[in-house]
Amino acid sequence: MADYDVVIVGGGILGLSTAYHVKTVHPDAAILVIDKLGSAGQGNTARSAAAFRCIFSSQTNYALADSSLEFYRHLEQDLGVDIKLQWLGYLWLLTEKDYDETSTVFKDLALKSDLKYTEYDCKELTRRLCVRTNLEKDEEAQSMGLEDIFGGILIPKAGVINDVSSLINFYETEFLRLGGKIQYNVEAKSLIAEPLQPWGISGEPYFWQTARAAGVSTNKGVIRAKKTVLAAGAWISRLLDPVGVECYIKPKKRQFFAIEAKSSDLQKLLFTKGFNSLGCLPFTILPSFRVYIRPFSKEGTYWVGYADDFPRAFKLEEDPQAEKNFYEYGIYQVLTKYFPQFRDVRASSAFAGLYEINTLDGHPVIFEQNDLMVVGGASGSGITKADAIGRIAEALYSEKEYASFYGHKKFKVSDLGLEKRYVEPEKLVL
Amino acid sequence: MADYDVVIVGGGILGLSTAYHVKTVHPDAAILVIDKLGSAGQGNTARSAAAFRCIFSSQTNYALADSSLEFYRHLEQDLGVDIKLQWLGYLWLLTEKDYDETSTVFKDLALKSDLKYTEYDCKELTRRLCVRTNLEKDEEAQSMGLEDIFGGILIPKAGVINDVSSLINFYETEFLRLGGKIQYNVEAKSLIAEPLQPWGISGEPYFWQTARAAGVSTNKGVIRAKKTVLAAGAWISRLLDPVGVECYIKPKKRQFFAIEAKSSDLQKLLFTKGFNSLGCLPFTILPSFRVYIRPFSKEGTYWVGYADDFPRAFKLEEDPQAEKNFYEYGIYQVLTKYFPQFRDVRASSAFAGLYEINTLDGHPVIFEQNDLMVVGGASGSGITKADAIGRIAEALYSEKEYASFYGHKKFKVSDLGLEKRYVEPEKLVL
Repeated sequence: MADYDVVIVGGGILGLSTAYHVKTVHPDAAILVIDKLGSAGQGNTARSAAAFRCIFSSQTNYALADSSLEFYRHLEQDLGVDIKLQWLGYLWLLTEKDYDETSTVFKDLALKSDLKYTEYDCKELTRRLCVRTNLEKDEEAQSMGLEDIFGGILIPKAGVINDVSSLINFYETEFLRLGGKIQYNVEAKSLIAEPLQPWGISGEPYFWQTARAAGVSTNKGVIRAKKTVLAAGAWISRLLDPVGVECYIKPKKRQFFAIEAKSSDLQKLLFTKGFNSLGCLPFTILPSFRVYIRPFSKEGTYWVGYADDFPRAFKLEEDPQAEKNFYEYGIYQVLTKYFPQFRDVRASSAFAGLYEINTLDGHPVIFEQNDLMVVGGASGSGITKADAIGRIAEALYSEKEYASFYGHKKFKVSDLGLEKRYVEPEKLVL
Repeated sequence: MADYDVVIVGGGILGLSTAYHVKTVHPDAAILVIDKLGSAGQGNTARSAAAFRCIFSSQTNYALADSSLEFYRHLEQDLGVDIKLQWLGYLWLLTEKDYDETSTVFKDLALKSDLKYTEYDCKELTRRLCVRTNLEKDEEAQSMGLEDIFGGILIPKAGVINDVSSLINFYETEFLRLGGKIQYNVEAKSLIAEPLQPWGISGEPYFWQTARAAGVSTNKGVIRAKKTVLAAGAWISRLLDPVGVECYIKPKKRQFFAIEAKSSDLQKLLFTKGFNSLGCLPFTILPSFRVYIRPFSKEGTYWVGYADDFPRAFKLEEDPQAEKNFYEYGIYQVLTKYFPQFRDVRASSAFAGLYEINTLDGHPVIFEQNDLMVVGGASGSGITKADAIGRIAEALYSEKEYASFYGHKKFKVSDLGLEKRYVEPEKLVL
């Protein structure tokens, strides 16, 4: 009856990592990935900041991120796959209160793992970055609630991917090489819910019948599968709501603004030496509101962004747009108080994407019910965690209790499910 | 700046209980309730089965329900308010496995509280109800997965409200008598999000400003309030999504079908003696799939219903409709296997409403953030728990750590909030 063993809805980073790992373990399984767009990773994967970091305060997040990064490093160093990782590091600039909390988290993690980090005091930061650490006499900054920078912490095992398509391309190519299939321009319109044992009566399944997901209806016809995997990010709930399944994933727009480093001050900041071997400013997080600066050294630009909360809407959009005011009255106002180098410089371009936020706890959600698997909720760190998430999805599909990450670390599959979910709160949210 | 101290969106049972309790404790507060319909309780409160029970396996649910029922009893017995409670009892008909589990739950609760219940074996049930307890030889029942009835458990402190408007009317009248205001035909279209300290710049609040809910925009204009309370049941998320706040409340259609007790067998069943002082069949829950029968002795009818799960959609509808097939191929098929009395009888009428399901744990959700309060998620037992929920909402508004239920029992307000939520799983779900 089924056309495929598995149909995966979504050819973004999570869908393709899942496809690759399931196909690797089950080479004979007929697996189809569909995506509504014309090629891989063109949805919200392409609309992300494409930054990565090994470090999270939750053991779960840390394990997902760290093992994924080890796999990406392995791809580059051992297999010669150029996925254009730039290990710039993440530099947190912190208020006194946040510094105390964050350095405690890092200290604890360093005791339990091989985490490396470096601390900087505010004088050193000023010397290196020409950052304003003391805003006491700035009345406007005070009324905006901006706080002084007490110190900084640098995590070297972090950075940016300058071309996400290279990583996407790895998973896609390998999946296809193993015999997997991908169909682009195919949009899942609805899930097919059917009784396990059809009676042939109108409107079945009824509640006294065991029901299951039997595939998807698409703009190109029906695709029937033994297992239906939803990896469509922010769009998952649009498929799940009509069958009454909760996934706790909601979409929120995230915006990025490009600033060209034309002035000598901005050039100097971009090519700040001493933080990494690339001689470039790290991915830098400002204090108080955690505005972040993502350097693009080759292009000579920065991206700046901010993940706002209340009252930013949960809203699905095909083509979300960045808002000029969000930069000018929002980010710019905070950014220039700490980094006067950005004063009077307008954004040269901008883009926006949708975070697929897991509203339970900000961790991914990977569960199965009724032959329906959900793989999502990466909450803004999909690229950072994609490899591990794909391996957990594979373990769930294979009905294993534990997933095996790159580097052989084991991970309990049910920890990211819904019934026996077990995660710690995350303190290092961006 | 504010027109009111409190604006409450939703004049159903939860909104009016909240309004009454807040106004009782704060007689000088200017409180306005708005409802999009023409009078109180005409939304999903009116579209419920209007059944109540004291008993839940979770201590939280039990406390909410039991104290609310004690208050309703007090209204009738001490204050002479006729809210038309019929203490018919709830009769669970149970398979052997469910009987073991359920009777253990009841035994435990009876040790800790004054819970009363009576057990019946299957012979006694057959004698009293002419119910088929043994379906072994019924091939169709077997292939439908229907199981034998092993025994029954009756909870006397439970029943139905034959006219919910009487209870609604109590809260409304008392709230108005205390000086509260209600405006009907006023529909909240959106929440107003504003900075605590406005800068007068376009598009504020920005993320560096502290933002708050400052009231609602309605079809009749803007209503500004110091505190905005959402008690709009299934509709809450439509107001919350645009400001990016998660409440974990999703709507699911529930259907009820009226069956006239025309035949002598159905008359006899309706007026079954011995279970309660009214000489009427209790509210009865069938085994296997928990189809339920709600007797309407005065009208000489039954309502039958079923709360279906997958693949019933999460879907908001202004006027949800019952589906003929849902009775004929769904409920009827199960009902008549156990109660042949219903064979060949069609539903004379039907209606549907929306459960506002809390998808976290099925318990109510009562929390505040940014001067916005959410009071909802009663998950099908809004009437059963309304009085306690209103008292918790009052305590939250009053910034008390504990709410005081009718009968003086204390309840920790944060247990039903989001940050420090603490509830047990509910095993007695209908």
